[in-house]
Amino acid sequence: MIKNDLFLKALKGETVSRPPVWMMRQAGRYLPEFMELKEKYDFFTRCQTPELASEITVQPIRRYGMDAAILFSDILVIPQAMNIEVEMKPNFGPFLPHPIRDQKGVDQVIVPDIQESLGYVMEAIKMTKEKLNDEVPLIGFAGSPWTILCYCVQGQGSKNFDKAKEFCFTQPIAAHTLLQKITDTTIAYLKAKVAAGVNAVQVFDSWGGMLSPTDYQEFSWQYIQQIIDALKEEAPVIAFGKGCWFALREMSQSGAAALGVDWTCSAQNARYLSGGKITLQGNFDPTRLLSPPKTIKRMVHEMIDTFGKDRYIVNLGHGILPHIPLENAGAFIEAVKEYKPRD
Amino acid sequence: MIKNDLFLKALKGETVSRPPVWMMRQAGRYLPEFMELKEKYDFFTRCQTPELASEITVQPIRRYGMDAAILFSDILVIPQAMNIEVEMKPNFGPFLPHPIRDQKGVDQVIVPDIQESLGYVMEAIKMTKEKLNDEVPLIGFAGSPWTILCYCVQGQGSKNFDKAKEFCFTQPIAAHTLLQKITDTTIAYLKAKVAAGVNAVQVFDSWGGMLSPTDYQEFSWQYIQQIIDALKEEAPVIAFGKGCWFALREMSQSGAAALGVDWTCSAQNARYLSGGKITLQGNFDPTRLLSPPKTIKRMVHEMIDTFGKDRYIVNLGHGILPHIPLENAGAFIEAVKEYKPRD
Repeated sequence: MIKNDLFLKALKGETVSRPPVWMMRQAGRYLPEFMELKEKYDFFTRCQTPELASEITVQPIRRYGMDAAILFSDILVIPQAMNIEVEMKPNFGPFLPHPIRDQKGVDQVIVPDIQESLGYVMEAIKMTKEKLNDEVPLIGFAGSPWTILCYCVQGQGSKNFDKAKEFCFTQPIAAHTLLQKITDTTIAYLKAKVAAGVNAVQVFDSWGGMLSPTDYQEFSWQYIQQIIDALKEEAPVIAFGKGCWFALREMSQSGAAALGVDWTCSAQNARYLSGGKITLQGNFDPTRLLSPPKTIKRMVHEMIDTFGKDRYIVNLGHGILPHIPLENAGAFIEAVKEYKPRD
Repeated sequence: MIKNDLFLKALKGETVSRPPVWMMRQAGRYLPEFMELKEKYDFFTRCQTPELASEITVQPIRRYGMDAAILFSDILVIPQAMNIEVEMKPNFGPFLPHPIRDQKGVDQVIVPDIQESLGYVMEAIKMTKEKLNDEVPLIGFAGSPWTILCYCVQGQGSKNFDKAKEFCFTQPIAAHTLLQKITDTTIAYLKAKVAAGVNAVQVFDSWGGMLSPTDYQEFSWQYIQQIIDALKEEAPVIAFGKGCWFALREMSQSGAAALGVDWTCSAQNARYLSGGKITLQGNFDPTRLLSPPKTIKRMVHEMIDTFGKDRYIVNLGHGILPHIPLENAGAFIEAVKEYKPRD
């Protein structure tokens, strides 16, 4: 069905001529065509208007021809649908004016009807699929329950999410109730996305690396596992945990089709820690895209050599930064397409 | 000479009745006696006045009886001595109004005469030694050259120190020149500290974990290695890298007496990655000090059980947070003193 099936083959662990490539946040501020729409429409208008979200999703594919598209959206549409007010402040980032700090706050959070609250995402998926015309697969995504809790409790971005951790460590019952509500919503949301047409889903645990391995199991991983269990028969699931190298072994046995790794985990360590069999995705340092294009190409080729061309999806180790030159992003994608395996 | 030599014995790898304990940032904002002085004197006045710095250093020892004191100071006294303007803004943190962004900026940085520019630190050490009266050892410290560069280039704290990384990746020659100047200054500074009386030194690589393993070797580790090489015959060196689990093997072969680890690296992983022989220091999640005191004590005992009582220094995985209750900090220290090895 999908003409370029490199990404889907890599997710199945099949042999490929070269690894597929896409970039986290590939539809983003480094693209002038994105900035044009950003100047006209505010953040949630872009997310909630299927014409805009689908257009933004295909912009990087048109320019660079990545091997997969990822639906333009935000992980915070989930708390928004759960009755939690979320603002996106320019030059500041997410801001939640009424952060959750106690059981009463948790009680007010609803598990919403997905079609009613997030139907616009499903419309955007259908519209994107038409625009993509089966050229490349489409990825849907959600934040991990822990990462969503981080914003709901902290109320904004943070270096250490100390208030979110304090909430979990001092009010664990309330924290687990909230995590389960987020998990239930996320499962229904991702199932609806698959039904609407996405070919794979990725769970972003951006802040899992703030937790000790023991606390990670308790407050993050068990909920991601629930999501994988519920989704894996319907679509391949990619689990990406920033700073979660210590959990790769457990993740590799979860039923996830692939694991995302950040740039602090070398290919050798990532293969070793994940048991050597599962498909891995990553892990170019996003800041390294500021190197000259020649250096980028050399480093990408070395990265593929060390991960190996099979069971591997080339990506960044986190989202692309806003101030990356277009030529440099292009060099990253081109390097993968030009890759020739070593004899 | 030093009456309580648990800490020095642990650094030598000798058998102890229980592991020693201290806390990074133990002289800090969680202590009311510190807050009293903070209200009267600004940050650099506290650092630069030996009476104040020595008083602040011994405050936590008086209250809790840790097994080592660490001189109250700041890693940014080094760039300040190197002719870089550093401000400490209330409710903001470090602010450098003229961040270094090019070779010209690097050229203006000096390698200072230590006694002239940082003599006040040596005075503070002598005064502290008198106050400690050989009850417990005194630790001196410095930031790693990479971590200092992060502030010098970024100009303030950051989630990802993207400007510092951009500087290194696009102007590597200027970056290495700056790193070497910081290294030379740091070596002279730490040697002067040892001569003034500190019993051990710790190098804090707070932002090493922002770098890939390859970039870590190039921009951080090689300079820490120079510091260890220059200091190890004069005093035991502790190397602490936050998020630097991937470098533990290399660190263990460096001549450092001990390695600090953060809370994302389990005792098992830390022992495995560091080769099983070197003394380790850490790694209680600082936010976990918000748990109830009973929970803290249980978790500390489990932590010692997994690290083992020998070749181990109990500490946090990073600095203590300002809003930790006094009772909870006390529970952490008491738990170690009450520890009985399992049969």
